[in-house]
Amino acid sequence: MANITKKVSWSSRADDSNATGEGTPLLNGSEQLGYSRQDSLKGRPKEITHNEKLLSLKYESLDYDNSENQLFLEEERRMSYLGFRCLEISRWVVCGLIGFLTGLIACFIDIMVEQLTGLKYYVVKENIEKFTAGGGLSISLILWAVLNSAFVMVGAIIVAFFEPIAGGSGIPQIKCYLNGVKIPRVVRLKTLLVKVAGVICSVAGGLVVGKEGPMIHSGAVVAAGVSQGRSTSLKRDFKIFEYFRRDTEKRDFVSAGAAAGVSAAFGAPVGGVLFSLEEAASYWNQMLTWRIFFASMISTFTLNFFLSVYNKNPGELSNPGLINFGSFDRNSSSEYNLYEIPLFIGMGAIGGLLGALFNALNYWLTIFRIRYIHRPCLQVMEAMLVAAVTATVSFIMIYFSNACQPLDVVQGEDYPLQLYCDDGEYNSMATTFFNRPEKSVQNLFHNPPGSYHPLTLGVFTITYFFLACWTYGLAVSAGVFIPSLLIGAAWGRLIGIMLPTLSSTNSTGQIWADPGKYALIGAAAQLGGIVRMTLSLTVILIEATGNVTYGLPLMLVLMTAKIVGDYFEEGLYDIHIKLQSVPFVHSEAPPTSHWLTAREVMSSPVTSFNRVERVGTIVDLLSNTSTNHNGFPVVVSNANGEEPAKLCGLILRSQLIVLLKHKVFVELARSKLTRRKLQLKDFRDAYPRFPPIQSIHVSQDERECMMDLTEFMNPTPYTVPQETSLPRVYKLFRALGLRHLVVVDDSNRVVGLVTRKDLARYHLGKHGLEELQLAQT
Amino acid sequence: MANITKKVSWSSRADDSNATGEGTPLLNGSEQLGYSRQDSLKGRPKEITHNEKLLSLKYESLDYDNSENQLFLEEERRMSYLGFRCLEISRWVVCGLIGFLTGLIACFIDIMVEQLTGLKYYVVKENIEKFTAGGGLSISLILWAVLNSAFVMVGAIIVAFFEPIAGGSGIPQIKCYLNGVKIPRVVRLKTLLVKVAGVICSVAGGLVVGKEGPMIHSGAVVAAGVSQGRSTSLKRDFKIFEYFRRDTEKRDFVSAGAAAGVSAAFGAPVGGVLFSLEEAASYWNQMLTWRIFFASMISTFTLNFFLSVYNKNPGELSNPGLINFGSFDRNSSSEYNLYEIPLFIGMGAIGGLLGALFNALNYWLTIFRIRYIHRPCLQVMEAMLVAAVTATVSFIMIYFSNACQPLDVVQGEDYPLQLYCDDGEYNSMATTFFNRPEKSVQNLFHNPPGSYHPLTLGVFTITYFFLACWTYGLAVSAGVFIPSLLIGAAWGRLIGIMLPTLSSTNSTGQIWADPGKYALIGAAAQLGGIVRMTLSLTVILIEATGNVTYGLPLMLVLMTAKIVGDYFEEGLYDIHIKLQSVPFVHSEAPPTSHWLTAREVMSSPVTSFNRVERVGTIVDLLSNTSTNHNGFPVVVSNANGEEPAKLCGLILRSQLIVLLKHKVFVELARSKLTRRKLQLKDFRDAYPRFPPIQSIHVSQDERECMMDLTEFMNPTPYTVPQETSLPRVYKLFRALGLRHLVVVDDSNRVVGLVTRKDLARYHLGKHGLEELQLAQT
Repeated sequence: MANITKKVSWSSRADDSNATGEGTPLLNGSEQLGYSRQDSLKGRPKEITHNEKLLSLKYESLDYDNSENQLFLEEERRMSYLGFRCLEISRWVVCGLIGFLTGLIACFIDIMVEQLTGLKYYVVKENIEKFTAGGGLSISLILWAVLNSAFVMVGAIIVAFFEPIAGGSGIPQIKCYLNGVKIPRVVRLKTLLVKVAGVICSVAGGLVVGKEGPMIHSGAVVAAGVSQGRSTSLKRDFKIFEYFRRDTEKRDFVSAGAAAGVSAAFGAPVGGVLFSLEEAASYWNQMLTWRIFFASMISTFTLNFFLSVYNKNPGELSNPGLINFGSFDRNSSSEYNLYEIPLFIGMGAIGGLLGALFNALNYWLTIFRIRYIHRPCLQVMEAMLVAAVTATVSFIMIYFSNACQPLDVVQGEDYPLQLYCDDGEYNSMATTFFNRPEKSVQNLFHNPPGSYHPLTLGVFTITYFFLACWTYGLAVSAGVFIPSLLIGAAWGRLIGIMLPTLSSTNSTGQIWADPGKYALIGAAAQLGGIVRMTLSLTVILIEATGNVTYGLPLMLVLMTAKIVGDYFEEGLYDIHIKLQSVPFVHSEAPPTSHWLTAREVMSSPVTSFNRVERVGTIVDLLSNTSTNHNGFPVVVSNANGEEPAKLCGLILRSQLIVLLKHKVFVELARSKLTRRKLQLKDFRDAYPRFPPIQSIHVSQDERECMMDLTEFMNPTPYTVPQETSLPRVYKLFRALGLRHLVVVDDSNRVVGLVTRKDLARYHLGKHGLEELQLAQT
Repeated sequence: MANITKKVSWSSRADDSNATGEGTPLLNGSEQLGYSRQDSLKGRPKEITHNEKLLSLKYESLDYDNSENQLFLEEERRMSYLGFRCLEISRWVVCGLIGFLTGLIACFIDIMVEQLTGLKYYVVKENIEKFTAGGGLSISLILWAVLNSAFVMVGAIIVAFFEPIAGGSGIPQIKCYLNGVKIPRVVRLKTLLVKVAGVICSVAGGLVVGKEGPMIHSGAVVAAGVSQGRSTSLKRDFKIFEYFRRDTEKRDFVSAGAAAGVSAAFGAPVGGVLFSLEEAASYWNQMLTWRIFFASMISTFTLNFFLSVYNKNPGELSNPGLINFGSFDRNSSSEYNLYEIPLFIGMGAIGGLLGALFNALNYWLTIFRIRYIHRPCLQVMEAMLVAAVTATVSFIMIYFSNACQPLDVVQGEDYPLQLYCDDGEYNSMATTFFNRPEKSVQNLFHNPPGSYHPLTLGVFTITYFFLACWTYGLAVSAGVFIPSLLIGAAWGRLIGIMLPTLSSTNSTGQIWADPGKYALIGAAAQLGGIVRMTLSLTVILIEATGNVTYGLPLMLVLMTAKIVGDYFEEGLYDIHIKLQSVPFVHSEAPPTSHWLTAREVMSSPVTSFNRVERVGTIVDLLSNTSTNHNGFPVVVSNANGEEPAKLCGLILRSQLIVLLKHKVFVELARSKLTRRKLQLKDFRDAYPRFPPIQSIHVSQDERECMMDLTEFMNPTPYTVPQETSLPRVYKLFRALGLRHLVVVDDSNRVVGLVTRKDLARYHLGKHGLEELQLAQT
């Protein structure tokens, strides 16, 4: 958080509409803080934190701009060309490791899920078959529901009680991290463990979830861990990769980890790279992208290789990802005709509409959850309830469906359920439920025409839609990709089946013959309508289908879904980011923001330090909880001291804290000549968990000492003049991944500071440019 | 060119080694220019221009940073949200058009080439078959050589005499353009026409060239033309897309065009996007990337569709690109084993070595050409010679080869040549020559084991290697992708054939069975060794094979080839860029450049203007050919005028010229009240061919007038302090696509200016950081 004293305001209620308009804030300075404390005593803090009209100040930013102070420059200058080469090689090694470990984790999750669900389906199927003839199927239902709830309970307990940040898919959190927002605990080892265990439990528990989203989070955590060469949680320091212990480098590796996660999840290494770029990269760096790609490749290869060993076909690399769409051959059914494209676009629009509906429902559900279900035990109970309901609904649907299909050995249904079908037939409704969802998606894409009854698909779509919507946001680790694909594939296939009956001419019956194609388009439309990713999702789907011919239709469908969906409601991830009031800086300034200049946007007045500053002043300022600034311009005053001081550098809270901890005072340096000079290593050792200012004890004598900041401040912070337009400020800020941008007047005197919140505040609402309020929580 | 007065120096010879070391330049100021003129009179300018130790000052930069002056801001502020939406939509329309037209051009080239080569092969084959029995094959040879030379003559004449910039593949030129260097005439309509006609002639003329590289250039020209809504060459202005008439927007579209070209050439839309990003994008822009992808998709789809119509199978979209590697099925022969990976890496190393050899030979050949073959008629004769030699060599090889293969109807050789083979057999050497090279590549990948005799492949590799090396750099439009792939596929397949004989255990014979796999790896290695592209090339190859399983081996091979190759020699495109002395700004500063600061890098003193400046001063400065500056800081002096003036803006030469042309003088504005105010439109109308200062007549009276620059200058240029390290300057410059970066002191007074040449000068040589000399030509 930075030097915002003027604009911090506080709105106590979501419906406090006159406070959310554009313009000046309600209160400022110390008054506002008094108010906020009183207000929070009234017991409504929960609503406030999650108001999408507010921007929370509790999130700090990451320093993606290197602080090029003297220490840093000295180190860089000492380093030989060979040293840089070694660094480069170790970056590659780290990326390889990230890919390998991410692939292993994906493999582990996949195998565990397969074993557990296999066991579960076997038990339930045996039970059902036992009771089918003699009656008493309600016992089977209870068995099924209890099994599911038990799994989910374990998953929910570890998430709700031990690591709430591990809940959900983790994609919004990783998006925020890569955007430059420090989400607490998001890349810790504990989060990873809970995430992996949690996702196994929730998938095994039969929830309407996927294991793909969590892979992205897992990859990111692996990357953040491996690249640092130590574990703060385990208190082990391997004394390697010390150079990488800063936000800039760590972010690069986390991008690679996220890409490796996508790659392992979908077998889409290129899609993974593009995902990372879409979410993260402000500054295109060729070598970095190349390394990210390497991590992705290794990840999908590792997964593929170990799964092939597990499947007893070592070397047959046919499982590049957790989900495979199966082979869409180039020759046979994969063609599409020019006149089908409008149809695809229409399906894209349906996907956009359904996606917006999904998101709107989930938005209200999330608001409800925030208000009423915020205690961990309630969260666990809700998750168990959903698990039981899912089992019950599935059971009822299977029970009342009479969609029998002849049992085809070639198709290889893993758990065909006969139920009330004739011998040699199986219940096709049961197939969609009695399967890992990935397998169901594949079946919808590839089963020959006639495998599904239209009514089965219709009922399945509706049920699954609401179950998925209810499930997303539960306190379990789970992704939304697979449910979306499944819903979309179901209604897409339904459309594919209905088309021949709708078209009057029977001669064209041949070309409508493949409903699997429509299932694919429907899946893309539904997924695009919910998550609204564009470029990366297209590439992921192209890679997952393994067929570039479908590129154009997929792209058109995803575009349509996004345009239609955006008209009604934002993307699911953006909704959740907004509900957390995260100051997210988008890639471009809102189009109509040329009216604003740095002068209006910046926070002022700014708290600055002198180049040589009294320790007491520094400690007092850092301890001031009402401001809680993180970056301080360093200024040098003129001889007479009357003119405002000129900017000569920028120093961070974290740097000051390390300086205070090591007592780098001018007076002490004089007295102890042998004293070790502070090195960059001392800053790296403290990274990333810098101690709070309260833990540092400064005696009354020491308060009178002076600190010389010259060596430690960044002497060349980026600056802009006051008249700079907001888009220009935005571009500079975003392209360089800045945290603090100093606004100066025409004599280089500090007049303000632009930080993440100052930019994230502005967004394009229904009525033109709107300004969000800033809140302390 | 910018305000460089201090550092411009002149080195007259390539071997002027003491002038190329690090440190101060030889001469400066006016002396240097006198020297340069004397020297050029001595008649050695040709060598100098093409010295890779020099950096030419003749290339200007593009303005990728918007000049946000008052006019611009007013226009942006006037624009409603709807206006921005319309702009966005028209951007999409333009990208769609770019893709469509690029696809059409690719289709046209493909069909023309197929028709012409078909005709040629038919005639020659008939002739050979006529003379095989009765003798007199020398007549066939002459016929073949004459036919080839005739085609090539036409192609070489139009390139050498009409538009030399259309020669070669055009990829180096597009790389430079996207990097921000203004290469004259590179995106003009005439260039496009010559390029298209030239590439048809050179491919039809049997040269060892491909038509893929030129597609990238063609796409870029299409983009630059379509996006401007007018043709300066044809003097037609459609009054549309006027907003896009500036470098920033045009560059974005050219990126899309280049991507569309790649996409059409290889059927690789994602690869196209990555190519554009790798070469162009400094600042990652999500919407832009998405549009580039759209253009790529449309391009490959258009090509595919029209080719399917041409092949009388409308709707069978099986030709996404000009070259298709054919289908590498997932199931059958496409597997590779873990222990094959070291083998692949070894092949990557071979590719790197052969690539470096190729590049070194081509480098010396280019130097030779620059010195001795610079007259157009000589260039045409050389091209014809190469064509004749190519035909002769091919003929001799076919004649002396006795590699007969049984004629297999299923394989469908287009022009099987029996020659001295038995009935029902054909000459396999003839196949590789009597084929479009694309088809030969496919055959090498997919023909069943035993199709080629090892000796055939060996001889073919060697011959083709030298022919390709000789051909690249001729004054014809031609690419190097296909020859590289072909060479690599040949030796790759050779390795694939030799392996089973080398391995002692016969039991493993099965797994070596598919030499096509090794052909693919060899092709990748050779191509990577020559062009040294990394990420985009991997993706292009993955897309061309249509099989993601090969991703990891391809990537490893390309990496190895690049590392090995870079050790000996640079990439082919980089060599040619360097030989043109283009100031190319790489994506990152050289690693050991932290020693340098803006103070050492910048050019100074800087020529500045006052906010209100005398017309005479401006005209004199602009007319000064010795400086030829393009950007001028605008300063405001203190009241007493003693202190150095403070920076208040930046104005470009092009803006000043428009102002002078419209005589926007303070005095005139007062006298003629009804005078139309200068608008942004006036600047756009003059774009991009601003008249030279010499064409603007300013009378003696007018010279005494004053010009107020306030409204037209960019009031918020980016600045850095003098102490900023080179990597930091570099990052800012590159990330924002700057042309001028003002260096200021701690009171915001101008002390220097950093431009493209100041950054491009520094590069990492064999002995650490080296500094290139700047030359006026």
